[in-house]
Amino acid sequence: MNLHKHFMAKLANFKQERTRLNDIMAKHANVEMKKFIHLDSSVYESGHLPSKTKEMMGLVASLVLRCDDCILYHLDKCLNLGVTTEEIQEILTIGLIVGGSITIPHIRRAMDALDEVTTTDLKTS
Amino acid sequence: MNLHKHFMAKLANFKQERTRLNDIMAKHANVEMKKFIHLDSSVYESGHLPSKTKEMMGLVASLVLRCDDCILYHLDKCLNLGVTTEEIQEILTIGLIVGGSITIPHIRRAMDALDEVTTTDLKTS
Amino acid sequence: MNLHKHFMAKLANFKQERTRLNDIMAKHANVEMKKFIHLDSSVYESGHLPSKTKEMMGLVASLVLRCDDCILYHLDKCLNLGVTTEEIQEILTIGLIVGGSITIPHIRRAMDALDEVTTTDLKTS
Amino acid sequence: MNLHKHFMAKLANFKQERTRLNDIMAKHANVEMKKFIHLDSSVYESGHLPSKTKEMMGLVASLVLRCDDCILYHLDKCLNLGVTTEEIQEILTIGLIVGGSITIPHIRRAMDALDEVTTTDLKTS
Amino acid sequence: MNLHKHFMAKLANFKQERTRLNDIMAKHANVEMKKFIHLDSSVYESGHLPSKTKEMMGLVASLVLRCDDCILYHLDKCLNLGVTTEEIQEILTIGLIVGGSITIPHIRRAMDALDEVTTTDLKTS
Amino acid sequence: MNLHKHFMAKLANFKQERTRLNDIMAKHANVEMKKFIHLDSSVYESGHLPSKTKEMMGLVASLVLRCDDCILYHLDKCLNLGVTTEEIQEILTIGLIVGGSITIPHIRRAMDALDEVTTTDLKTS
Repeated sequence: MNLHKHFMAKLANFKQERTRLNDIMAKHANVEMKKFIHLDSSVYESGHLPSKTKEMMGLVASLVLRCDDCILYHLDKCLNLGVTTEEIQEILTIGLIVGGSITIPHIRRAMDALDEVTTTDLKTS
Repeated sequence: MNLHKHFMAKLANFKQERTRLNDIMAKHANVEMKKFIHLDSSVYESGHLPSKTKEMMGLVASLVLRCDDCILYHLDKCLNLGVTTEEIQEILTIGLIVGGSITIPHIRRAMDALDEVTTTDLKTS
Repeated sequence: MNLHKHFMAKLANFKQERTRLNDIMAKHANVEMKKFIHLDSSVYESGHLPSKTKEMMGLVASLVLRCDDCILYHLDKCLNLGVTTEEIQEILTIGLIVGGSITIPHIRRAMDALDEVTTTDLKTS
Repeated sequence: MNLHKHFMAKLANFKQERTRLNDIMAKHANVEMKKFIHLDSSVYESGHLPSKTKEMMGLVASLVLRCDDCILYHLDKCLNLGVTTEEIQEILTIGLIVGGSITIPHIRRAMDALDEVTTTDLKTS
Repeated sequence: MNLHKHFMAKLANFKQERTRLNDIMAKHANVEMKKFIHLDSSVYESGHLPSKTKEMMGLVASLVLRCDDCILYHLDKCLNLGVTTEEIQEILTIGLIVGGSITIPHIRRAMDALDEVTTTDLKTS
Repeated sequence: MNLHKHFMAKLANFKQERTRLNDIMAKHANVEMKKFIHLDSSVYESGHLPSKTKEMMGLVASLVLRCDDCILYHLDKCLNLGVTTEEIQEILTIGLIVGGSITIPHIRRAMDALDEVTTTDLKTS
């Protein structure tokens, strides 16, 4: 029970720590770094492809490159844009097949966050 | 001119060599390898997400992992499924931002194939 | 002393957390993902090569790809299959030479687990 | 406040844990591993290029390969050799551009350590 | 037929070019580089583990890191040490499962060399 | 002799092909891609650190990420900015130690280009 509560707060903790670190990064970033960060936001905005499709691509890219922070970030974005649990499973499966078993620990942690979110939703609805 | 012709056949040559090597691989693959290859095909089939979206994800994953063969394969699949040139540009841009300048040589070669295809289409239409 | 105890439980904690996450993954995995996970088990079973040799290859692959979870998993498997401490050292050294100094932090953590196991064995024997 | 204190000790904790693990590694390393570790030290010594330039290269290599431990190690070395905050920013920016947005979580953590060090220096001066 | 002959010489060409480049490298390598190259040879020599097992580990490490030159080198070593075709298949399958579909182009090329060698052996025997 | 001439033109051929592909990329790049390419140039310009140091860092980053095109590009830049052969050796050695034996094929090809350049210089002086 105690363990469950600890993980219930996983995505929230991640976001809080991410905000704290982004503030520090904003303080120390030089002009070129800031330009890159701006560009990094703009490429996920809707253009010829909708933002939703782009965030899915961000998720699969993060998985095959095995970056937990990036996975959680794009997972959260995807869920907010209405990507369903079944679609998330298919996205992670493509990452798994492209990237191999070495991606499994990251999929486990992504599914831990996914489980937390879907379990919470069921309870609050 | 001669140089241009040489590259006009780029995607065709890639496919021909790929077929030759796939035949050799089929000859030497064991049961587990064959199961994986089957799985590798099935995950790009339409499910909760359409095949088109999955091929786009295959393209971006191939780019950030910097595999020319995989990029050309998924690029060809995307074009056959009706992904437009503008959409390809946005997919490659996400790969570029996620994966950095180290992906540029691969983007150059992908665009060389893209240029070949679009130039040929214009001439034959 | 307190610090030592904390690390004594390292491999046990890893296994417990791994089990918890595998249960969550089993709950959310789709058919293709389950097929991959099944395949991932079967390739380490004895065939033309014994399971022991395959687990050693799993360990070196995990090290050069720098995945702590995968390293600990295959290290544990190797030890259970009778791979000696001296052999583990040679496996990790091959990973170090192939993968370079960037693998050192992972080797340090693998040796921390190895030290825990061998120290415990000495004390209990 | 409490949170800040926790991170004030970040670089110190990293060094302490690194020392503990290096002792364990020294205990379990075989001859070839020890030769590599010796070589790993000697290549950063001043030769045709000064040690300072070499540590900067070690930092950028660690960033594009996305190894937090290696980044913190070379960041600390750079700061001790007199590399300025502005220079660190330029080094990290090159890593960011070469390696892409996937390096950002590592830059955030590097800047967290950098912020800790520079804030502490201001307070103690 | 012509195409087949071209590939018949694949492994021989690889070795010839490798020798040419090694001579150039020997000419330009500094002391530390030479020490590393010496170390790189010694770790594959028989110790607690036989050279054969170590070359298999070199092959799987090269595959998951996706380096064609390294794959061909260790494949050749394995074959010379008596590793069978069936064992090679199992080694490559472990690399495929660990590293995912992104390794397939490299497996194709490895199997092209393997096919060349086994076909030649059959013809000359 | 014939073989030597073939490689004499290696760096020149690389530059010519790079220019051809850059023209194609410029034709197909979208706004965000162009912004990134601009940023990619600007980070190597002299700032708090001189361009020469930055190009050395670009070379080491390219080596550990194992991108031949990027290595040749930064090697050429370094040589033009007056980095000596001995310094190039030290830069490549750091990349070798950080990235391991998997970088050796890339170092061989870099040294092949270096050998071509230095041999030509001796002959023309």
